[in-house]
Amino acid sequence: MNMPAADSMTMVVHSGDLDKAMAAFIIGTGAAAKGTKVTMFFTFWGLNLIKKDGARKAKLSRMHMGGLGTAMIRKLMRKNNVAPLDELISDAADLGVRMIACEMTMGLMNVSKDQLIPEAKEIGGVGTYLDAAAGAHVNLFV
Amino acid sequence: MNMPAADSMTMVVHSGDLDKAMAAFIIGTGAAAKGTKVTMFFTFWGLNLIKKDGARKAKLSRMHMGGLGTAMIRKLMRKNNVAPLDELISDAADLGVRMIACEMTMGLMNVSKDQLIPEAKEIGGVGTYLDAAAGAHVNLFV
Amino acid sequence: MNMPAADSMTMVVHSGDLDKAMAAFIIGTGAAAKGTKVTMFFTFWGLNLIKKDGARKAKLSRMHMGGLGTAMIRKLMRKNNVAPLDELISDAADLGVRMIACEMTMGLMNVSKDQLIPEAKEIGGVGTYLDAAAGAHVNLFV
Repeated sequence: MNMPAADSMTMVVHSGDLDKAMAAFIIGTGAAAKGTKVTMFFTFWGLNLIKKDGARKAKLSRMHMGGLGTAMIRKLMRKNNVAPLDELISDAADLGVRMIACEMTMGLMNVSKDQLIPEAKEIGGVGTYLDAAAGAHVNLFV
Repeated sequence: MNMPAADSMTMVVHSGDLDKAMAAFIIGTGAAAKGTKVTMFFTFWGLNLIKKDGARKAKLSRMHMGGLGTAMIRKLMRKNNVAPLDELISDAADLGVRMIACEMTMGLMNVSKDQLIPEAKEIGGVGTYLDAAAGAHVNLFV
Repeated sequence: MNMPAADSMTMVVHSGDLDKAMAAFIIGTGAAAKGTKVTMFFTFWGLNLIKKDGARKAKLSRMHMGGLGTAMIRKLMRKNNVAPLDELISDAADLGVRMIACEMTMGLMNVSKDQLIPEAKEIGGVGTYLDAAAGAHVNLFV
């Protein structure tokens, strides 16, 4: 297909599950690699993903995926050359993906900026998300 | 940022979890306050949120949020001046957010109109949702 | 309402839960019936839905829906003339809904093409999804 990439995309990352986080970052890095401006807004459980070591602690949303647990799926990912979550996050930052930590969630969960990974450069509220979504072609809630 | 707000937004609210409902209504009221026309379509578990007392019964999608249960998160929300869900729903109605109860789900769960909160003024099907989504800039599935 | 249908719509179907799958296919077939070009991309747990017999094995995301389990909800669906999931999938195919199996997930879960239902005619990656989303008006993550 020769369709042009979307100019911009946003994702509300509400889930902290490993499988949803993988999907969000695979979509986000894939889009950014095509030249799409990507904004990811991490809220509620999703905030855990951008805490230091959060990517390594994320678990599957279900106990099994084809009979497999979290440790097994991470092993399978390596075997299938699927980048692990922390590498995807680093790739996303290199590709210019804008990662915003939800200010309200930081307050609720008592998380300070220095507990976040350096790739998450911004802290913002729903207004910041809505401004990005208003200018974006593709908007997902993950 | 000086980007214009989106003209209109829709959300399919499929989840009945407190944290997802909070996210949906914070986004919905935030958008409506900027002048965006917001339509929320409550289906499956999401229908529970617009049943009388449904907002007070909603539980977190996970047992813990940074170690916290549903009761604790409600307390933390009050402490952090985050409006409780029933207040957000009332705010949404005041701001003109259109709340539609899914007719099919009402049939499946044997819910009658008088069991719904008065803020949910409409009952509709997937066609009603699709009409709203076709005219909207931002469409989310929560 | 006399609004025109959206020209095209995409859904990332990440969940394998019966209730989310029902919502995705009711939205997808409803849109396709209005003339909207619909693309569904089945990834992670969602891939299970397009495996042979996958639609019959799908379970609710919660134990109860108004006190009801998976078997009871299927019975209620029949009673309320809601098409079962396998029929919705077949309807979707008849209406020209494009169903794409995620190549990466097939690798992770060791699923081969002949394990998929014939309605899922394509195998593709995130790039295929992003091309479809870039041209679509409504994009959902389910």
